[in-house]
Amino acid sequence: MAIFSRARKIRFAHTDAAGIAFYPRYFGMINDFIEDWFGDGLGFDFKHLHIDEKRAVPTVHIEADFIGASRMHDELTFKLTVTKIGTSSVHLRIWAAAEDGDRFRMTFVIAHMDMENGKSLPWPDDMRHAMQQWLDDQGERP
Amino acid sequence: MAIFSRARKIRFAHTDAAGIAFYPRYFGMINDFIEDWFGDGLGFDFKHLHIDEKRAVPTVHIEADFIGASRMHDELTFKLTVTKIGTSSVHLRIWAAAEDGDRFRMTFVIAHMDMENGKSLPWPDDMRHAMQQWLDDQGERP
Amino acid sequence: MAIFSRARKIRFAHTDAAGIAFYPRYFGMINDFIEDWFGDGLGFDFKHLHIDEKRAVPTVHIEADFIGASRMHDELTFKLTVTKIGTSSVHLRIWAAAEDGDRFRMTFVIAHMDMENGKSLPWPDDMRHAMQQWLDDQGERP
Amino acid sequence: MAIFSRARKIRFAHTDAAGIAFYPRYFGMINDFIEDWFGDGLGFDFKHLHIDEKRAVPTVHIEADFIGASRMHDELTFKLTVTKIGTSSVHLRIWAAAEDGDRFRMTFVIAHMDMENGKSLPWPDDMRHAMQQWLDDQGERP
Repeated sequence: MAIFSRARKIRFAHTDAAGIAFYPRYFGMINDFIEDWFGDGLGFDFKHLHIDEKRAVPTVHIEADFIGASRMHDELTFKLTVTKIGTSSVHLRIWAAAEDGDRFRMTFVIAHMDMENGKSLPWPDDMRHAMQQWLDDQGERP
Repeated sequence: MAIFSRARKIRFAHTDAAGIAFYPRYFGMINDFIEDWFGDGLGFDFKHLHIDEKRAVPTVHIEADFIGASRMHDELTFKLTVTKIGTSSVHLRIWAAAEDGDRFRMTFVIAHMDMENGKSLPWPDDMRHAMQQWLDDQGERP
Repeated sequence: MAIFSRARKIRFAHTDAAGIAFYPRYFGMINDFIEDWFGDGLGFDFKHLHIDEKRAVPTVHIEADFIGASRMHDELTFKLTVTKIGTSSVHLRIWAAAEDGDRFRMTFVIAHMDMENGKSLPWPDDMRHAMQQWLDDQGERP
Repeated sequence: MAIFSRARKIRFAHTDAAGIAFYPRYFGMINDFIEDWFGDGLGFDFKHLHIDEKRAVPTVHIEADFIGASRMHDELTFKLTVTKIGTSSVHLRIWAAAEDGDRFRMTFVIAHMDMENGKSLPWPDDMRHAMQQWLDDQGERP
């Protein structure tokens, strides 16, 4: 099972009045992480996709479990595997690991669409092949 | 079925390079909405809860379906009902309605905890009673 | 002197680990406020301007004094006057008043440009006239 | 002249409906950058300062010139020098350099205060000494 991963440090700006990472900001971090996966993990640059090719990859479904609180300067590792590749969608398992356990575990379903007419687009073969290398053939939860 | 609702306008700042509301920003809006529900719907002010009483109401689980794209200056109505009241948690159904249909539908599970020791706290009777008035006895999806 | 104003409540999401409004979030609020001024104060809708007419109004200069801390649920009044109308720019004085005094006072210089070629555009006469009604002829600081 | 610097990539999440970096998000990035300067440039960790020592370093004044637009995936270098060290404040010059020129140039005045009573605190000698190594003795603008 190939896992795409990136380090991510919790910043002052991520924390709230309770002194812990404010969960809406995790979704901003996850968007950056998926952007990195497209560019560095798949070889399809987010900018080229959106700006030049007018294709979008909107998130259509999320399931999220928040397991433990993150505090300022915690060092997390964001991890991602592919659990299913549909005709024009992909299912991702994304989680954040810290020394003392996971902070969240999520499932994302991302669609592939034409930005100009809003219609779904099948993944081209090269993107499909690139995604397959991150496929979790075990199907196990982290 | 009592539904707590608030108008919310999509702003320039909510939109992304694809010209539509960027989904991480919905979670910030939903946090404001839950803050309003605590204060105006339940009569338990978020500030008093967090700052004076050192109680937190962290989100522990989210399921979200993004149904339609929102564009700048769309006028949404955020809506909320309670679907389950646990000992120290509450399940909420939250959705955003627009003229042409819903933009998202979500389930939130929110816990009730002591900020100082991180332990879960049973809802006091007055909060439980206040929540019951927003209970969706039908159990139907919007 | 005509002053454009809007109420703005400090939210949980605006505050930081020090329990006070985190200043980068003021700039998001000010962008909403300027968006309201264009739409409701001038009669030129931000969406129409950006999306239909491909004109942008980028901020080119800011001077900001942060005078007092804002806490969760403080009720502020954002206020704006025009201090100078240039050929293709406008100078705004923007401040946030609270019961116990101002929280910040800023000067903004906003330019007017064509989004497609990046070049500055003179204000059309109707926009210039609309701006003149918010002109602060006294030139005094709030 | 010692310059503290960090690479910063413009992300999808930083851009707006006009396809360029939305300026309020620069201030979030600058907060991260100042946090890095305190921790890595001065050796005074932001978390320790805020959480353990209850000291805050609020921004009290900003002057900002936005010179050029940043687009998704632009690689910027944020840079910082100290221009003045006061009794309980510090003046910083902060700018973002890109291959084709600067994107913004700012002056920040940051104060040093006791979070519990809101009063200003003189810099301790060790912080003052650490700041002196980043002092720009030339006084020239970048």
